[in-house]
Amino acid sequence: MRLSRYFLPILKETPKEAEIVSHRLMLRAGMLRQQSAGIYAWLPLGYRVLMKIQKIVEEEQNRAGVVELLMPTIQSADLWRESGRYEAYGKEMLRITDRHERDMLYGPTNEEMITDIFRSYVRSYKDLPLNLYHIQWKFRDEVRPRFGVMRGREFLMKDAYSFDLDQEAARHAYNRMFVAYLRTFARMGLKAIPMKADTGPIGGDLSHEFIILASTGESEVFLDKDILDLPVPGEDTDFDADLSPIIKSWTTPYAATDEMHDPEAFGAVGEDKQVSARGIEVGHIFYFGTKYSEPMGATVTNSDGVEVPVHMGSYGVGVSRLLAALIEANHDDDGIIWPVSVAPFHVGLINMKPGSEADGACNALYEKLEAAGVEVLYDDRDTRAGAKFASMDLIGLPYQVIVGPRGLKNGEVEVKNRATGERQMLSPEAAAEALIATVKSQS
Amino acid sequence: MRLSRYFLPILKETPKEAEIVSHRLMLRAGMLRQQSAGIYAWLPLGYRVLMKIQKIVEEEQNRAGVVELLMPTIQSADLWRESGRYEAYGKEMLRITDRHERDMLYGPTNEEMITDIFRSYVRSYKDLPLNLYHIQWKFRDEVRPRFGVMRGREFLMKDAYSFDLDQEAARHAYNRMFVAYLRTFARMGLKAIPMKADTGPIGGDLSHEFIILASTGESEVFLDKDILDLPVPGEDTDFDADLSPIIKSWTTPYAATDEMHDPEAFGAVGEDKQVSARGIEVGHIFYFGTKYSEPMGATVTNSDGVEVPVHMGSYGVGVSRLLAALIEANHDDDGIIWPVSVAPFHVGLINMKPGSEADGACNALYEKLEAAGVEVLYDDRDTRAGAKFASMDLIGLPYQVIVGPRGLKNGEVEVKNRATGERQMLSPEAAAEALIATVKSQS
Repeated sequence: MRLSRYFLPILKETPKEAEIVSHRLMLRAGMLRQQSAGIYAWLPLGYRVLMKIQKIVEEEQNRAGVVELLMPTIQSADLWRESGRYEAYGKEMLRITDRHERDMLYGPTNEEMITDIFRSYVRSYKDLPLNLYHIQWKFRDEVRPRFGVMRGREFLMKDAYSFDLDQEAARHAYNRMFVAYLRTFARMGLKAIPMKADTGPIGGDLSHEFIILASTGESEVFLDKDILDLPVPGEDTDFDADLSPIIKSWTTPYAATDEMHDPEAFGAVGEDKQVSARGIEVGHIFYFGTKYSEPMGATVTNSDGVEVPVHMGSYGVGVSRLLAALIEANHDDDGIIWPVSVAPFHVGLINMKPGSEADGACNALYEKLEAAGVEVLYDDRDTRAGAKFASMDLIGLPYQVIVGPRGLKNGEVEVKNRATGERQMLSPEAAAEALIATVKSQS
Repeated sequence: MRLSRYFLPILKETPKEAEIVSHRLMLRAGMLRQQSAGIYAWLPLGYRVLMKIQKIVEEEQNRAGVVELLMPTIQSADLWRESGRYEAYGKEMLRITDRHERDMLYGPTNEEMITDIFRSYVRSYKDLPLNLYHIQWKFRDEVRPRFGVMRGREFLMKDAYSFDLDQEAARHAYNRMFVAYLRTFARMGLKAIPMKADTGPIGGDLSHEFIILASTGESEVFLDKDILDLPVPGEDTDFDADLSPIIKSWTTPYAATDEMHDPEAFGAVGEDKQVSARGIEVGHIFYFGTKYSEPMGATVTNSDGVEVPVHMGSYGVGVSRLLAALIEANHDDDGIIWPVSVAPFHVGLINMKPGSEADGACNALYEKLEAAGVEVLYDDRDTRAGAKFASMDLIGLPYQVIVGPRGLKNGEVEVKNRATGERQMLSPEAAAEALIATVKSQS
């Protein structure tokens, strides 16, 4: 993409309303614009990252055998009256009356609707297990939306739902999602730690939050540092096999949010292994049994011909929130530092002097990289080099290639690694080859 | 995808509420479920087609130099008060009051919001031209939603907006979109005809509807049959070049909707070339000058230092509606007939006798085709062959491969072309090679 044809409105000033670093950087880097309180337009650079995150989430859901569909944003209030949550949800639910005076709402989550879809088609235990997910915009009318997309009102979420005949089968569905989440966040370059979560009045031990570590995270977490070195399950994981050994290895070392922290148990962890850090919740998985299937009549006939309510779980990933979480975990004073897997572009190509012989070298590099699947944002604008450098650092593309007449006299361009600051002078050919190889190995 | 693990709720009965063939077939083929009047859940098979359509639209927008972003679904009423459309829009607008008693609405379109984004960042003619698009759910509270996703309340639309310094530049933006639309619909296997549309009080000749031909289309259209043979601009079209010769070739032969029909002009077309047909509107492009930029203050400084309102256009494609339009244009008595480019899967693999030697042959074919990028829906269920055949015809995958013990004795499987009904007995290897080649050539 040539910057002269792109829409990247970099801000020089830091908007006052931004209280946290990810919000500040997203506004400054031209990724996001607030349209109303807690409601954002995703400008082109932000949208690209959002779609990269969505794609990773989808790939890992599909790998785990979850099937994608899409439910609408607007729901009927009647469904929520069936489950008993219409009144219980309170003011966070955006309630709507349509032209025929019907009570509708903007879905804050989809347990009711997916249960309704399930019950209208599925009759027999032979059709189980069933795992469905969608990635759709949700709305929660927060009383005080803030922190940008970290706590917005309109937000993008992946929510999955499992349907099983009994608790044992539901446990397997839960384990599959647990493993899928470990893989999902690791692919984004994040350290995500599953932590036992409060299950509220339902009880049971089947709820985990996935917390990523970030120095500017919203809450304090406590860990046994062994958990940081656990291997993430590989691409070749067999999701039909017994996954409980993996779950056990990840749930044995101590790890707890502030809310669930047990100082005594933490004390039992050797002092040299105690870590306290800051974290951000990016996923939550939950087994809730027959909470919705019973009141809503989502039953199947079991092998004895008896009608039984199905056991369900739900599994969320905050897709738009992840964008902010990624920035909280990856930034410095100059701006964002994207991991390759979610970067809006892989390479920022800076033409130091448009109109000079740098044009030809830049065009050749641009074509070569793009043809190899390396995504390039080419700054071909006729502006000051200093402003170009600052913008590239701010938007945080993993690699920069700086092309100017002076370097070209020696047959060289400069390649900069945004994360390490390391710089290398290379021939344009060598630079292209190195970038193609390194981007491929990290994508 | 193995059908035993998929969610494909085929209906045997035709739901009574479905008045048109696409709605009937989408419900029967397990693609769609109505959640409220005019509001649908996209079941897995339907969602796959929707995403294929979206991807083609995106690729052609990107090729034409339009930049993607994403605006939110919920908008502030204040923006619409600025343009004067808040009152004018009437009951079709879904109006919402949030917990702080602020007037909001579910966007039926985005002229106001994109103008607001533009004016907050762009100051100079040097930043023009600018072309932006998004693909987002919209809501129009139709008094009587019907015909399934052909006229739903919550629907997916691609809307693009162009910003230019003057009318001449805006004309070029318009021409680019005109060409992009010709390519977009052709890639879906549709005959799309641009027809002059009523521009209302704004006047001018810069509005065209794109109507696709379908025997069961909603409205009557009149054509000079020469237009059916015009070449669609190729992938290598230079969108920076003068596109007016292409536009001229497509706007010279007679083509009109019922509304704009001029019997006298149609009479002047030779009688042997007069075609009257049925059509469905799937796109609409529109130049509207300074209609929004003036009241909303979206101005730039021109090269003389004078502040002038920008010239705008908007360009819509009904993404969810296209799914219905595609079915109206491609079906027979047995069900849907998908063109390869938008088919939910390319091949339906039918195992005639699970548990027999057919399993090995099916697994080998499945692996081989998937590895080559051919998307396979593998019916591995232990059900009647007749039901499997009927389901495959109903869901309309372009090719079927039928594998049974009898054929395998002769070393053969059967390949069926859904569109022509043609059947061939081939070795499994030859079948795989033929399918890989034919799918690649049409994707």
